[in-house]
Amino acid sequence: LESGRMRRLKPMLHSLSPAEIGLLLESIPRTKRELVWRLVPEDDHGETLLHVNDEVRAELIDALDDDVLLAATEGMPIDDLADLIEDLPEQVTREVLHTMDLDNRERLEAVLSYPPDSAGGLMNNDTITVRPDVSLDVVRRYLQQRGTLPDDTESLFVISRYGRYLGMLTLAKLLTLDPERDVSEVMNTDIEALPVDMSAAQVAKRFQDLDLISAPVVDENEKLVGRITIDDVVDVIRDEAEHSIMSMAGLDEEEDVFAPIARSARRRATWLGANLLTAFLAAQVVGLFEATLSQVVALAVLMPIVASMGGIGGSQTLTLMIRGLSLGQIGFGNAKTLLIKELAVAIINGILWGAVVGVIAQVWFGNPTLGVIIAVALVINQIGAAIAGVAIPLAMKKMGIDPALAGSVVLTTITDVIGFGAFLGLGTLFLLR
Amino acid sequence: LESGRMRRLKPMLHSLSPAEIGLLLESIPRTKRELVWRLVPEDDHGETLLHVNDEVRAELIDALDDDVLLAATEGMPIDDLADLIEDLPEQVTREVLHTMDLDNRERLEAVLSYPPDSAGGLMNNDTITVRPDVSLDVVRRYLQQRGTLPDDTESLFVISRYGRYLGMLTLAKLLTLDPERDVSEVMNTDIEALPVDMSAAQVAKRFQDLDLISAPVVDENEKLVGRITIDDVVDVIRDEAEHSIMSMAGLDEEEDVFAPIARSARRRATWLGANLLTAFLAAQVVGLFEATLSQVVALAVLMPIVASMGGIGGSQTLTLMIRGLSLGQIGFGNAKTLLIKELAVAIINGILWGAVVGVIAQVWFGNPTLGVIIAVALVINQIGAAIAGVAIPLAMKKMGIDPALAGSVVLTTITDVIGFGAFLGLGTLFLLR
Repeated sequence: LESGRMRRLKPMLHSLSPAEIGLLLESIPRTKRELVWRLVPEDDHGETLLHVNDEVRAELIDALDDDVLLAATEGMPIDDLADLIEDLPEQVTREVLHTMDLDNRERLEAVLSYPPDSAGGLMNNDTITVRPDVSLDVVRRYLQQRGTLPDDTESLFVISRYGRYLGMLTLAKLLTLDPERDVSEVMNTDIEALPVDMSAAQVAKRFQDLDLISAPVVDENEKLVGRITIDDVVDVIRDEAEHSIMSMAGLDEEEDVFAPIARSARRRATWLGANLLTAFLAAQVVGLFEATLSQVVALAVLMPIVASMGGIGGSQTLTLMIRGLSLGQIGFGNAKTLLIKELAVAIINGILWGAVVGVIAQVWFGNPTLGVIIAVALVINQIGAAIAGVAIPLAMKKMGIDPALAGSVVLTTITDVIGFGAFLGLGTLFLLR
Repeated sequence: LESGRMRRLKPMLHSLSPAEIGLLLESIPRTKRELVWRLVPEDDHGETLLHVNDEVRAELIDALDDDVLLAATEGMPIDDLADLIEDLPEQVTREVLHTMDLDNRERLEAVLSYPPDSAGGLMNNDTITVRPDVSLDVVRRYLQQRGTLPDDTESLFVISRYGRYLGMLTLAKLLTLDPERDVSEVMNTDIEALPVDMSAAQVAKRFQDLDLISAPVVDENEKLVGRITIDDVVDVIRDEAEHSIMSMAGLDEEEDVFAPIARSARRRATWLGANLLTAFLAAQVVGLFEATLSQVVALAVLMPIVASMGGIGGSQTLTLMIRGLSLGQIGFGNAKTLLIKELAVAIINGILWGAVVGVIAQVWFGNPTLGVIIAVALVINQIGAAIAGVAIPLAMKKMGIDPALAGSVVLTTITDVIGFGAFLGLGTLFLLR
């Protein structure tokens, strides 16, 4: 960035939200990030670090001085601070804890004691609690005296004398209902508390299913330990969906788009290597038919078509399965019904496009037998693709492997092997003189 | 479902949320859905219809009597009703409008006048408004008198005498600040109103960027017309992410997993047909080298490897681009920098895996020239794949086509053509005697 553009950048950065600054940092090459960072308003430092992906964050933290980092953490909510602090250098973490008051330090340590992808890791423990046996008027006077509430507070939590979660009291009810009534009469007891060890994915599902805005988190003794607000859950929902897209191409959703070339190359190499193994398997199948191929070259010309159609058909079934599994639409219980449907679809489309390809092949090479063979091979491969598309993700799920991550590589191997095998095998049987 | 299981189902359905019932309906075969629907508690009818995908909803609506549908719409919030009503039979819609009071009908008609995927279509117009020149105490007494607030109200909206949006007043502030102060002193003016014609995707981005829970919607004259709450935005965020995953396999995210076979087959046929065209293009390239293939069969055996490695490398770049474009990380401005990085990664991995494949090919077929040729072809194809992976989505974006929808088909065509062309072309030059 030339100095002229830099001068215009500074006021622009002041008008952007930390999320937008984060996106800007992700979208410029590595070499320029430090320059731009220096123009980011200090107040936005902490939140901006939260909004960039893991790799860019690590890079910025490396480049920043300890006292800049320490200043960035000031005034951050506990749940956000908990996310950030694990990435900070140890020296800075110690400083942060040192400068906090005892109360906040204990709250931070409580959040840090849970895995980041659990309800405990997502929660903030700045809950405002009230007792069930007081009147709304008492609660109102208490809040008036308090003078301020934590961000995004739209409900208070009702707890027993022993800290057990009993219900929620929305601020809306507090303002509209008769002040003489007791909290216990008007509190909402419908919303079940989330166990502190619930997975982040399940928390996200609960929020979506019940359209929650905030929810209480309890420990194994039903004691209220914190609350989760929807803004933290939105990030989980987004990350989950992106994880599937990126995994299916062997990528990591936390990867920096402008990661150093060597690092990107190393990561992608693994994926290409895994694919190479499966490609060699397919080549080996083709190799079995060398003698046939040298006599009927048309088979070599047409064989990519059979393999490719199988791959496309299979990946449609696979994608439907991966999404259905993650939404909970599909499980072991209804997989058989789905398999039957997918098989029927595969057979119909196999016959349809098999016929089309068969006619074209026959005209192209003037060989009716070749046309029939490619049509039959295409049908066989569509059927194999449907079975593989349903079976692979279920098998992987059973083995505890993420189907989005490796499903497509395994699937293409199978459709390649079946496609080449069926087409060249039939060719060997019926076309060799 | 046998009658014993049906008996157990009824109490289970009563304990599920509408979202969970919706998921259950999506995950059972079509033939059983009507049976299960009869056991769904009537109170949940409306919301359950909202939680199933478009196809299942249409199917259920078809099967239900008009009076059941009419009953289902009772008591639904305006924004939800607006989503549902467009799918109802005309007769029912007329009934619904007829039975509503004038006030609600006008509000519903206002929401219906905007496209569903705009801020106007997402919003609910049940806002509680206050004037800036009254004291908090007056507002409190007004709410007390009102006795109830719309669901998920955590802020009031401050408007001028002419209905212009001025700011937001959180219930938290209303409860904690000095009641003698005026609304105008304490209202939050940071949150910009969303224009009523803003796209749903942009609304979602704004909510995520600013961690909003609700936001005001204004018309072209800055007049407040409604509010959007985060629970509606969460659905948009989810749908967007799913749209990419499903589009990349030529599927529709609103498709019923158990759609009728004929309908599924017809839809998938289009995708397979598009792919067939491109597969024939690749086959035609192979066909150019028939003479070479009949002399050097090893080329036929190895050619799928070159094509497949190109496809995998290219789809990694493509996925990175599709996601980067949708997040806003990548645009025309920084595409060149990204292209250079992707090219470097492609060259490194091309050389690495080209060398591996080259050595294996040489050992397998005992032909050193063949090893060199496949290595060079692999490098060329990786380079082509990187260029195509960056260029295709940008070109599609410029043409207004969704890169997620057709990107992968175009990409594989290009990597197949380059892969087969380079490998067989080099083979013809250097291996023919």
